[in-house]
Parts: sequence; structure tokens; C-alpha cells
Amino acid sequence: MPRIVQKYGGSSVEDADAIKRVARRVLAAKQGGNDVVVVISAMGDTTDELMDLALQVSPMPKARELDMLLTTGERQSAALLAMALADLGADARSYTGSQAGVITTAKHGDARIIDITPGRIESALDDGNIVIVAGFQGVAQDTKDVTTLGRGASDTTAVALAAALSAEYCEIYSDVDGIFTADPRIVPAARQIPEISYEEMLEMAANGAKILHLRCVEYARREHVPVHVRSSFTDKPGTWVKDLKDVKKGPGMEQALITGIAHERGEAKITVVGVPDQVGRAAAIFTALGAADINIDVIVQNVSRVDTSRTDISFTLPSGDSRSAIATLKGIQDSVGFQELLYDDQIGKVSVIGVGMRSHPGVTAKFFQALADAGVNIGMISTSEIRISVVVDQDDLDKAVRAAHTAFGLDADGEAVVYAGTGR
Amino acid sequence: MPRIVQKYGGSSVEDADAIKRVARRVLAAKQGGNDVVVVISAMGDTTDELMDLALQVSPMPKARELDMLLTTGERQSAALLAMALADLGADARSYTGSQAGVITTAKHGDARIIDITPGRIESALDDGNIVIVAGFQGVAQDTKDVTTLGRGASDTTAVALAAALSAEYCEIYSDVDGIFTADPRIVPAARQIPEISYEEMLEMAANGAKILHLRCVEYARREHVPVHVRSSFTDKPGTWVKDLKDVKKGPGMEQALITGIAHERGEAKITVVGVPDQVGRAAAIFTALGAADINIDVIVQNVSRVDTSRTDISFTLPSGDSRSAIATLKGIQDSVGFQELLYDDQIGKVSVIGVGMRSHPGVTAKFFQALADAGVNIGMISTSEIRISVVVDQDDLDKAVRAAHTAFGLDADGEAVVYAGTGR
Repeated sequence: MPRIVQKYGGSSVEDADAIKRVARRVLAAKQGGNDVVVVISAMGDTTDELMDLALQVSPMPKARELDMLLTTGERQSAALLAMALADLGADARSYTGSQAGVITTAKHGDARIIDITPGRIESALDDGNIVIVAGFQGVAQDTKDVTTLGRGASDTTAVALAAALSAEYCEIYSDVDGIFTADPRIVPAARQIPEISYEEMLEMAANGAKILHLRCVEYARREHVPVHVRSSFTDKPGTWVKDLKDVKKGPGMEQALITGIAHERGEAKITVVGVPDQVGRAAAIFTALGAADINIDVIVQNVSRVDTSRTDISFTLPSGDSRSAIATLKGIQDSVGFQELLYDDQIGKVSVIGVGMRSHPGVTAKFFQALADAGVNIGMISTSEIRISVVVDQDDLDKAVRAAHTAFGLDADGEAVVYAGTGR
Repeated sequence: MPRIVQKYGGSSVEDADAIKRVARRVLAAKQGGNDVVVVISAMGDTTDELMDLALQVSPMPKARELDMLLTTGERQSAALLAMALADLGADARSYTGSQAGVITTAKHGDARIIDITPGRIESALDDGNIVIVAGFQGVAQDTKDVTTLGRGASDTTAVALAAALSAEYCEIYSDVDGIFTADPRIVPAARQIPEISYEEMLEMAANGAKILHLRCVEYARREHVPVHVRSSFTDKPGTWVKDLKDVKKGPGMEQALITGIAHERGEAKITVVGVPDQVGRAAAIFTALGAADINIDVIVQNVSRVDTSRTDISFTLPSGDSRSAIATLKGIQDSVGFQELLYDDQIGKVSVIGVGMRSHPGVTAKFFQALADAGVNIGMISTSEIRISVVVDQDDLDKAVRAAHTAFGLDADGEAVVYAGTGR
């Protein structure tokens, strides 16, 4: 019997009625002739409420114990979904991440999946059960302690289980209909993408598209698991993420250079002014930031000014890391010998993404011309083989996204397709 | 290093402040030079809230999944206590029942402990940790599914762990000061009992004293674990439950015939009227009730009436089981051939308990005389080697308890000892 893995996020199981609705959908998949494994998130705000409780008890809760606490949320929704399925006459069994064989590193709060040993799940499926697995969690290989997998981890659990169980595909359910050519809240003419390659999805996720987590897409690409991103509130097909060779472009889309436009609002820019133009100074800066666990995105270094033999280095980073980054940099100001720090969080990043650009050298020119025509000034530039990103003023961000979307022929023909998500 | 096991009930951990107070008490025990293992219940109303949620999802939640759901409550409080201890500078680690090696039968909702395999706890203690174990739960030996142990089970977990770890003793913390010669809400002159034998405690627990669960006392007796019942709101010593040979009677208590007076209000009486006086009819009745999982307490069968060759059989049972018992009996009315059923839930049971009565044949007479003097009519009688119980009208219950307490010289000298519990 073909196996499928389904994952439901917190908004799909926010209360008892929502859980019953998910149960009907799961049962339909089973009755459609599949073995079904469901990965489930905690109900609505459960995780936030547990975190509040932890902070009432301790200003800095121990990571091991926080994992022990937070993992109970998914265990609850998993058990509740199994009860709802039993009421519909289905045989269903819930399992903790540990019981399901999700083996991880021991880094509490941000563990990585090392292996899946799905023996119990296999035999539960063989006995005809629908299997429900608590997402976001596993068990540390060495210590046997309960771990959580960090943000977006339920998606990753689902894809990892799909790979371990040789499932046909993995469905990721949320409250949006799929992946769009741009955020429909900014570009009303955005279209849903029927199929997209792992590589493009990776660039989309890494550059602001929040629907799938980066690590999940990486896992799916490595294990060749087709992922179907869709809404739990409709029966419409969503977006398939798959190997490039399997991606079917829709009619009239064969010449598409660009698959989508991603944007990111939550970054800030730090400029390190007057760095002595000597070997090792940039390395010292980024080594210190790396040691402080700060994720750097775009980096730009200007050519050295002849008069001073000094240069400026700018980089972007998640806004939430700014305070820690500035403290780190101030700590090495004397040893590195830079002059001052500038900070700007009124920035935005626009990225055009598409495997088609590999063979079309004109993409950069077309993108920049579109921005110029829209009166958008370009601050920083960063590129990969299938992506071009620019940093702009935050006030110009929406305008820039729309200009790029139109320039690359992504706008829906005729009237705009209305964004069909629930807005949550 | 001597080991002790402490158990804290839900009222001792009802909120963040309560958890921090428990943490200080646990730390004090550790600093007193002990290895400490803590068994903990779910916070306040958590279990009831989870049960409500389950009933919203399913009118009859599957037992396996209910166990999966409800066990998260104790896991949360265990993790929170470990966080609070870490804040005090202690090394503490929380474990689920399964991780702690609490191996049980597979009867979900009412599993029994088969074995404790405390390997992980032993090594955590050896590493200097305070160990916190989620109470009320274990893992089924055969299925490896999560189980709950039924009512009063956290106490039993604590005693079982104390036995498995060869602990010096087990402390059971709640919001009452210990075991009293009678319920101080009924008998203001009741005294706290400093030490009591397992056998007497068993009779107290089986006959209405709610402080320790029957199964917990049975386990402690079998494994010779001294149990210290005390309040988490004071530092006063509570009541020690131990082997009879180790029980020290207080000064002036050597001649005490009776250790305490227990009472039970939550029972009902069913009378099966006109049972044919033939072999096997009573057996048929109690076999049917047993199959329906109904716990029978006192049974009385009158002598058969000569004129009809029929007899009446009366028995008491927990009021909550009445509906099911009556349905069961109606189902066998034709085959057994009895005439009718009478039902009375306005009853109460008073028990006098004490190992001293073994060698004093006058106890029954003294008890009955005291009830007669108080104007209390006796309905049913049941005895064991160290207990006499009578069923009376519920309106007479308090009067009967006070009369017995006074008759057996249990009243505190001089002014009454004020009941020091918090009343919760």
C-alpha cells in the first residue's frame, strides 16, 4: 500500500473542532488507499503558554528541562487527534518523537535529526493503524534525553519520516494555499506556483518566503522526497516541491526566467567603518560574529580608500541578532582597529529566483532596470547561481517586489488571482 | 549517601510560586546530606483541564490516547521543578515514568507497577543530581506504550521507587499535617498519630481515610518502606507509617486499644430482596457484580425466612458504582429469581481500628455501647482482626465518630489540638 506522510501546523489544530476536521481529512487519505503517517504540531498557542510558565518559574530555564516541558504540547495534540480518529472508526495510535525513533543530536532547543529508526511505526502501519507522531521533537542519541528540533522542525520531522518510510510524498498542511510567485499581500497579481524545484524553493525559503523552513527543504532535496505544500482549509492542489528534472512548467511558462520573487523585511544592516586595509581584519570580524552564533546574510566590502588605507564593511543580519552583534563588534574594536559602527534597520531585501537565469545573462540588467524605472535605489547586491538579491530602503520594498514581478512576466493574465489563504 | 524519596501532590505545585517553594524544600533535603528523588504530580487542575479537552474531542476517549494525553501534566511539573532547582544552583534532572524505568501492566488508565528498572536514575544520582520523576505514569512492559496508574498512583510510584532504590524512607507531602485519630473536621479533639503500623494504616485507608492510597500502603508494607506523611506547608514532623515492631507508642499510649476512627461517606447500600435460599444464588450475584468491575465493601446476609425460604442480601459499594450495579442486578433478576432491589445512599460507615483489639475481646461491646449511648442505630456490621466497622444513617455519622473517639480515650487532653491543615 502506498505510504504518505502528512504534517499539520498549529493553526490547523487550534481547538477541538479543528482537530476533528483534521481527523476527517486524515481518514479520507487512509480511505483513499494509503498508509498514512501524520506529524502534528502543538495546538495554537500551547507552546507560548508553556514558555510563559517556564519563565515564571525561572528567568533562564535550563534547556534540557525546557525541551521536556515544551514537547508535551505536541504529545497532547497527537493524542487528541488519535482520539478523534478512533471516534470516526479508524485505528489510530499516537507516538512521541522518541517512540517514533526520531534520533537527534543532544543540542537542546535546536537539535538536528541524525537518524530515524521507525520500527514501531512500521509495525503499527502493518497492523493497519494510522500513525500520529508528535512533531518538533526527538530523543538524543547519546543521553536518551528528550530534545526539540528548533524552528520549523515539525516540517523537517515530516520529511525525514517520509524518507525513512520510503513514502510516496509528504504533504505539508498550513493555512496558505501553496507557494506563490510573490507574497500576494504585496503583489495582488501573484500566481500560485504548481511545481517548483528544491533549489529554487531553498532560495525562496532562505530569502524570506516563510512557508517552508530551510532545513526541511534541504532534507527533502537530499532524500528526494516530493513535498506538497497545501491548505488544510480547502481541497485545492497546492505547490509541489520536487527534483528539477520532474518539475513540469505550465503552458507558456517554458521560457520563464524567474520562478518567483522573495522578500525579507526582518533584517538590519551594520556597517563597520574604517577597517584598516590589512590581511585578516575582515576575518577577525566575521570569526567573532560566528563565535557569537550570529547569522550573517549579505556582505559587501567597498574598495579601500586610497587616502586612508581603510575600508568599510557592511553586512545584513536578522534584526533580532543586532544587539548581540554590536556588543561583539565593540568588544573587538581595539584589536581590529575600526573607527565606528553604523546601524540601519529600515532596510528590506528583494530576491529574484529561478533556475532559468543560469542560461540568461540578461537577468541582472533587466532586474536593475526595473528597479530604476520604479525609482528604487539599490543598496547592496548579492547573487547565487539562481538568485539575485538587492537590499533597498524598507519604504521601497513593496514597490521593488511589484516592479520585479511585472518585469519578469509573472503577473497573472487578465484579472488578478485573489489570494485564497485565510490571512492567518 | 543515604537516599530519600519525596512525593509532592498537585496542591503543593499549583503555580510557579508553589513550585519554587517545593524546590527550596527539596534542596534543603539534598543539603542535609541525602541523595534525593522527587516524585511529582501535575499542577493543580491540569489533569481535569486535559480531561475536559479530551471530552471536547471525543465523547469516549480511547484509553491508550488518554494516557498519552494526561501524562503530559506530570511531565510539565517535573520539568518546571527541575528548572526551579537549577535556579537555586542545584543539578536536577526530570524524567518521565518511562525514562525512570516504571514498568507496568498494559491496562490503560489503571495500570499496575510490575517492576522498577532504575538504571538511569541510579546513574543520575551517582552524578550528584537531584532526580525528579513524573508521577502517575509508567510504560507497559509488552507494548511499550505510556500508561497511567490510576488514582493515588503518584504515592505508589514514590514508594515503589523508594523500594527499588533502597531508600531510607519515603516522604509523602500534601496539605495536611499527617494522619489523625479521626478527621479533625468532625472531631476537634483528634490528635495527630506520630507512628502507625502498615496494617492499621491499610484499614484506615480502606475505610475512608483519604490521605494515603490503599495501594501505596500495600506496596510500602510489602517492601518495608517507612513512609512519612507530612505537610509541605510546615516543617513539623508528620506521621510515620512503618512495621508494627518499629512503631513506638507515645507515653501513656501503651494501653491504647484503638489507634484511630475512620469514616466513609461516599458509599451506598443495595439490598437484594427475596433471594431464593439455594446454593449458588449469592455467588451468581457477586460474580456478576465482579465482572462489572464493581467494588463491594460490606456484605450482610440475613438468615432465611422460614415462611418463604427466601433471604435478603445487603451490600455497600461506592455511590458512583450504584447505577452500574443496579443495571447488572436487573440483568440477572430472572435467572437468580430475587424479588426486588432496595437502594439507600444516605448511609455512612464508621470504623474503629487498632492492633490492640486483637488481645482485647471487649472492644466490640465498648464500641456498640458508645453508639447506643449516643443514640446511633447500627445498620450493618463488618469486622477484621484489627477493625470493626458499622454502617449507620448518614445523619448519625459525625455523632458516631465522636462517640467512638471519646469512648476509646483518643480525645486530646485539655484543650483540643487545632487541625493545622490548610483545609484544601
